[in-house]
Amino acid sequence: MFFYMYLTEYINGHVHLEESDMCESDGKLFLNEAFSVIMEEILHKGTDSKEKVCEWKDPDQLRALLDLDLREHGESHEQLLQRVQDVARYSVKTCHPRFFNQLFAGVDYHALTGRLLTETLNTSQYTYEVAPVFVLMEEEVLRKLRSLVGWSEGDGIFCPGGSMSNMYAMNIARYWAFPQVKTQGLWATPRMAIFTSQQSHYSMKKAAAFLGIGTDNIFIVQADERYWTLSLTHFGKPEKRHVDVYMHVAPTFSVSSCLQNYNLDLSPLQAAWGGSVLFSKKHKHLVSGIERANSVTWNPHKMLLTGLQCSVILFRDTTNLLMHCHSANATYLFQQDKFYDTSLDTGDKSIQCGRKVDCLKLWLMWKAIGTHGLSERVDKAFALARYLVEEMEKRENFKLVCKGHFVNVCFWFIPPSLRGKENSPDYQERLSKVAPVIKERMMKRGTMMVGYQPMDGHVNFFRMVVVSPQLTTKDMDFFLDEIEKLGKDL
Amino acid sequence: MFFYMYLTEYINGHVHLEESDMCESDGKLFLNEAFSVIMEEILHKGTDSKEKVCEWKDPDQLRALLDLDLREHGESHEQLLQRVQDVARYSVKTCHPRFFNQLFAGVDYHALTGRLLTETLNTSQYTYEVAPVFVLMEEEVLRKLRSLVGWSEGDGIFCPGGSMSNMYAMNIARYWAFPQVKTQGLWATPRMAIFTSQQSHYSMKKAAAFLGIGTDNIFIVQADERYWTLSLTHFGKPEKRHVDVYMHVAPTFSVSSCLQNYNLDLSPLQAAWGGSVLFSKKHKHLVSGIERANSVTWNPHKMLLTGLQCSVILFRDTTNLLMHCHSANATYLFQQDKFYDTSLDTGDKSIQCGRKVDCLKLWLMWKAIGTHGLSERVDKAFALARYLVEEMEKRENFKLVCKGHFVNVCFWFIPPSLRGKENSPDYQERLSKVAPVIKERMMKRGTMMVGYQPMDGHVNFFRMVVVSPQLTTKDMDFFLDEIEKLGKDL
Repeated sequence: MFFYMYLTEYINGHVHLEESDMCESDGKLFLNEAFSVIMEEILHKGTDSKEKVCEWKDPDQLRALLDLDLREHGESHEQLLQRVQDVARYSVKTCHPRFFNQLFAGVDYHALTGRLLTETLNTSQYTYEVAPVFVLMEEEVLRKLRSLVGWSEGDGIFCPGGSMSNMYAMNIARYWAFPQVKTQGLWATPRMAIFTSQQSHYSMKKAAAFLGIGTDNIFIVQADERYWTLSLTHFGKPEKRHVDVYMHVAPTFSVSSCLQNYNLDLSPLQAAWGGSVLFSKKHKHLVSGIERANSVTWNPHKMLLTGLQCSVILFRDTTNLLMHCHSANATYLFQQDKFYDTSLDTGDKSIQCGRKVDCLKLWLMWKAIGTHGLSERVDKAFALARYLVEEMEKRENFKLVCKGHFVNVCFWFIPPSLRGKENSPDYQERLSKVAPVIKERMMKRGTMMVGYQPMDGHVNFFRMVVVSPQLTTKDMDFFLDEIEKLGKDL
Repeated sequence: MFFYMYLTEYINGHVHLEESDMCESDGKLFLNEAFSVIMEEILHKGTDSKEKVCEWKDPDQLRALLDLDLREHGESHEQLLQRVQDVARYSVKTCHPRFFNQLFAGVDYHALTGRLLTETLNTSQYTYEVAPVFVLMEEEVLRKLRSLVGWSEGDGIFCPGGSMSNMYAMNIARYWAFPQVKTQGLWATPRMAIFTSQQSHYSMKKAAAFLGIGTDNIFIVQADERYWTLSLTHFGKPEKRHVDVYMHVAPTFSVSSCLQNYNLDLSPLQAAWGGSVLFSKKHKHLVSGIERANSVTWNPHKMLLTGLQCSVILFRDTTNLLMHCHSANATYLFQQDKFYDTSLDTGDKSIQCGRKVDCLKLWLMWKAIGTHGLSERVDKAFALARYLVEEMEKRENFKLVCKGHFVNVCFWFIPPSLRGKENSPDYQERLSKVAPVIKERMMKRGTMMVGYQPMDGHVNFFRMVVVSPQLTTKDMDFFLDEIEKLGKDL
């Protein structure tokens, strides 16, 4: 009786339970047509150096163009395809050969295939049951990355970005030293401090705050002028009144000598950007000693071009610290009476529950070009950066911030009006205004994108990132010419 | 001179700087062909109820089939396409109409389009400069979600999953109460405690541990028999010696009465799964009072089918607490002398640096079917769950764990040998072994997938998740028949 009423209720125009609400064929047709738009607008036009990197619009203009409002009723197939077109058109083309703005520039088609496959399979990396392929694949990729670090054993996990990987490293380090922190919190531990280089990433601050350690408990150690090596003379301990326990988080190029000279217990290593030099026989000496760290953060979504997000935290530990520190034993996921080996249900190592699959894009790209291909990619980036530096040295308009040997090149553009005026009292002030103006002009022309920043008393300088294997010396020449063109009247 | 040597070095077979390393046309061809494989293997076969949900292989078997090893040299186009095929073949088809194992079952083609578009655009959701479309889009989607909660103002952010959203809520709550925690850490605050329901998600534990609060400082409050409402008689305060400050984290259906009766300062609300009922006029009463919470965690990747990951944390706060609590002011991203309104550079609200774009899939799907279409989706899930419950009540083999009115249905299958034996001393023990055996048989047949778990003294029961709009009453009937078939000899 009740059942009858209920069916009637729904048959009467409210909800149809007897049939699927989705028209599969319409859905697939839309996806197919949208894929063509994606290919054309992003991967064809977006990688063509004759096209714009970005189509700059002011926020109000863009809001109007996009018609973002979400309404009561849906739109037609054609309108929706136009939406896809608009999103593509007004988004920045990070795959464009003239996008130098971020560390994730460029596109690798195999990695992208891995990403599309991941999205379509739409599963969570937590149990063998729902992610059999990816559980085994993550294991293999982590093993291989650890072997590049120099560890034949260990542990690790893919995290949603390098900042999260750094937080993992810090949390595991404190749990290793004070396991009671998991159950009793920081009130049951001595005060801790974090030692890190002045060049360390701002995620150190975020992590210290989020983990309840506090940003005042970060102690900055000066690096040398190339920013690679911590200056040991500055590696003093903070005053005893400040802190009871030390934690050391090192930036990419700084560890081995410090570890040798100081008897530090904990040493997570932040190599999100630099880790990929491990692929290069020619350049891996830059991170020599990396195997002496206890953990390594490494983002293949940067120099290797897997696409966002692809970040790992690797541990030398072989005592299952990651699982002990993070496990919460959810009974609805990690049943112990499953019919397969439940050590494959690795999800409880994570602080997430649902966790995106991030290993496939790296694995497929690695299968496609091999370790050798990845090492060539790294070598090419170094060689192009060196070419760029040498070209800059030939031009009087450019001045390097430091003589680093890495693939980001930091420099000032010195416009004609400032040349030879280094000793004027307002020189620094005037120089600081150059980069923002050039950046604005560049964005509005849409010809290229490169970032600028002030740092450590240096006024605004450009940070040119050279990673994409699409790049050639012509792109480097274009870059220098374009900066000169944009800033010649300043 | 130096330059000459350098060019020679690279021209001699090592690295070619004069040309792009990537063959664009080969890359695009591969992507196109792989997309056809994805369409055929996952979206065509994977959604066909006559095909298998999963192709179960033992881990060792699967390792051998996949050939996961990463080698020195790359593979051919054909081999790589076969890799794509293999990954698709041996992965679980979460889009299959008989996948009832997780809350993210099913597929929406517009949301999937949004995901592929996001992956191809490959940018980070941190500045207007590199994500102009997505900064504005996130703002609009968050505004619209807040308005469904009942807030005309507020803040929010997309996070990598519901567990992270819950951590954000907890961190903001403690910062609101004790802003010194950001700089000085928890040693500078009183001890805190977390009140939560016995039904709360296990991420509460993960968050308490990660944030440095400690899992012992979680105090469990009993819920009523439907698990919806906290039992106020059990909502006592923990003894004073345990804790100085209280923090209250509520599960989906529990808040309003508690907030009314207790003067609690902080009340993050965990509605990752249940939040989507806000779309339904018919069912939103289930979360009445939600607008009285201070924050709401909500995962559209569950009931709304956006695909993983799509999780938001929404705040009622209008004082920019999210930014104050998390900001680290990185000079290389959040320059204050940019030429546009830098309040659009929302990335510093996040604890991540690079942050995946998660708003587009939800936005595009919402544009496609409107608020109305999403509400129908929720209503249909409820109606199908009700149908399933009613059908179960007609069959003597099924027993409900509780009479909840939600879209997950928890039940025991009582095999013939256990029927009428409720009073045997080994009844519970024997019943606990039923679900794991059925689950194993089901996985190996590949006909469907559903999860089981023990909880709160209840031995292993199945948790059937009904969300996908592809489902019909036929799928519900199939489900019941199949469970009976798999367990009839037990």
